Amino acid sequence: MIYLDNAATTLKKPSAVKEAMLLALDTMGNSSRGAHDIALNASRTVYEARERLAAFFNCTRPDHVIFTSNITESLNIVLSGLLEAGDHVISTELEHNSVLRPLCRLREERNVAVDLVSSSRRGLVDYSDFERLMRPETKLVVCTHASNLTGNVLDISRIAQIAHSHNALFAVDSAQTAGTRKVDMQKHGIDVLCFTGHKGLLGPQGTGGICIREGVDIKPFKSGGTGVQSSLCRQPDRYPARLEAGTLNSPGIAGLAAAVDFIASKGLNVISEREALLTLRFYEKVRGIPGITVYGDFEGEHAGIVSLNVRDLDSGLVSGILSDEFGIATRPGLHCAPLLHRALGTKAQGAVRFSFSCFTEEAEIDRAAAAVKSISERPLP
Amino acid sequence: MIYLDNAATTLKKPSAVKEAMLLALDTMGNSSRGAHDIALNASRTVYEARERLAAFFNCTRPDHVIFTSNITESLNIVLSGLLEAGDHVISTELEHNSVLRPLCRLREERNVAVDLVSSSRRGLVDYSDFERLMRPETKLVVCTHASNLTGNVLDISRIAQIAHSHNALFAVDSAQTAGTRKVDMQKHGIDVLCFTGHKGLLGPQGTGGICIREGVDIKPFKSGGTGVQSSLCRQPDRYPARLEAGTLNSPGIAGLAAAVDFIASKGLNVISEREALLTLRFYEKVRGIPGITVYGDFEGEHAGIVSLNVRDLDSGLVSGILSDEFGIATRPGLHCAPLLHRALGTKAQGAVRFSFSCFTEEAEIDRAAAAVKSISERPLP
Repeated sequence: MIYLDNAATTLKKPSAVKEAMLLALDTMGNSSRGAHDIALNASRTVYEARERLAAFFNCTRPDHVIFTSNITESLNIVLSGLLEAGDHVISTELEHNSVLRPLCRLREERNVAVDLVSSSRRGLVDYSDFERLMRPETKLVVCTHASNLTGNVLDISRIAQIAHSHNALFAVDSAQTAGTRKVDMQKHGIDVLCFTGHKGLLGPQGTGGICIREGVDIKPFKSGGTGVQSSLCRQPDRYPARLEAGTLNSPGIAGLAAAVDFIASKGLNVISEREALLTLRFYEKVRGIPGITVYGDFEGEHAGIVSLNVRDLDSGLVSGILSDEFGIATRPGLHCAPLLHRALGTKAQGAVRFSFSCFTEEAEIDRAAAAVKSISERPLP
Repeated sequence: MIYLDNAATTLKKPSAVKEAMLLALDTMGNSSRGAHDIALNASRTVYEARERLAAFFNCTRPDHVIFTSNITESLNIVLSGLLEAGDHVISTELEHNSVLRPLCRLREERNVAVDLVSSSRRGLVDYSDFERLMRPETKLVVCTHASNLTGNVLDISRIAQIAHSHNALFAVDSAQTAGTRKVDMQKHGIDVLCFTGHKGLLGPQGTGGICIREGVDIKPFKSGGTGVQSSLCRQPDRYPARLEAGTLNSPGIAGLAAAVDFIASKGLNVISEREALLTLRFYEKVRGIPGITVYGDFEGEHAGIVSLNVRDLDSGLVSGILSDEFGIATRPGLHCAPLLHRALGTKAQGAVRFSFSCFTEEAEIDRAAAAVKSISERPLP
């Protein structure tokens, strides 16, 4: 099968990921629980993983790298831990449900005021909207680095500047960019970075995390054992224990660290360029096919995602044909981004998303584009 | 190293666990995301894992088996999702911080009334206390099946009867029993069962879950994408999506399912008897050593745990000697069970916990007991 659903999860991982996980399964006890070699081995491996990710994202404090089970959990922790009654938060219509649903809930349960910057029909935002929506009580601006539907990349440095000029915090959902393009907390002005392990970072499912700038105070989401300060009735105050209750996914974290090493050794810029090349190659081949609508903006920066529709055919039907007849894996439907689909005018039809990884081959791109052309040439059903 | 810290995490796993995880890493897309073979393969594997666990715990509905990253998350979801302002909950002093800390927080944040059944100096509860503490507004009784410190097993059927006779729900923390002794939702009258994958179930770290009796209504803890009903602003209502936001730990879940298969094929009763034998063997060898205090009750049912102290030596010191000089891994300190340590009179000293798995060998038990004897015979420091 030609796997072009890397925005959902990357399938091909560096072999070092599996090796690290196997080693962890054989040798790692419970991190932060006990002082014998096997527990310490887990603690060391987990701490080294924090150091790797801190270096990778330019987070000044490795102990402010928090591990979670996925970026949805990261975003829940961050939004729930930062926003209180009376606070105002700004986000965008481009967001995934991992941002929209927690915000919807905080609005209902805590009376948090939520404003969303709207999207154009090309999936673009007007940056002056962030400025316009600012209020004195704006606590946070949170947005995706790149849309998981159109692949459009937002200028997060610019949004950070706007947020900071109003004394608001800036949090980023890097689900579609971490591991495939530069995400630099210092350079981009990110206060809180949420990441997931199993997409561009090439790690296993079950991993994700948060990098927190020193001084940012996020309340605990879960409570429970941490292996430290066990006699406290409350969650310990210090990161990472404050946000990490319960046993960590040590084998997953070991695999993620190996994946980050792979990316660093290969060179993030090499991976970025490779993905841009593949994306452009596919876009150029499909954009001119009669009956094909491609969504998003390909003049600005773009992640490794191309979403399209064939005439008015249901996206599930097209994705099904691609899978069944051509052996090509894509993702149809709403991609958990309902407001952006509304903006694009595709709420009923959905869209067929093709998404690439650094392991995707040119021949796969070409076969996928040929398959799209072939489907587009069929008589209308 | 002789690994006797299985109550923290089992180290030796069935080889099928690793094989299942490797297969998952190579072949599984994102469960519930997309309809191509690779995503469907993940969905199928995850659903089969739900069926395995439902059968294992005698939960009537596989779709009411929720996957989490560990039992601490399970307990947070359950306690936060069941208890509202004005509710009363009963638990015990035997609990782990994974129960105590969420309850402490719900008391503070939601004004939930919390009563704890006290522990004797042998770590036993008086069952009439549950009855005595019942109030009309008691919504829930939650307790551990076996103490992670003493290994004492509670009569959960009896507690369930008391809870149900007062129309309260009964939730169980099976961290120290799932996979090593029978936990049967129907037979024991459990409404909500929390389990962890990486201890007695012999699965990987990063896995855990909740089995929910049909009709029990637990509010969402996290919100986000589920791959279904994406246009809703709120979390979908149906289990499992209601409690599972974000990408699951598919390789971990595949490994856990393989581990459950291993236990079922080996026979849970065989494993139970093996562990009881090892535990008794160790207990019998250490109980009479001068200067040794063993905690807990060995007349009733007992999990594979023996905690002890050598005179008034700090438990961390003894555990360190066991590790450094004898190559034996144990866990000292408070074991995240501060109230029980207070009841046992060991809040300052902690205790040295020896915990066994079905893979522990008799020779390892004997060497550990000999090491305890040797340390006990040293001159007082």
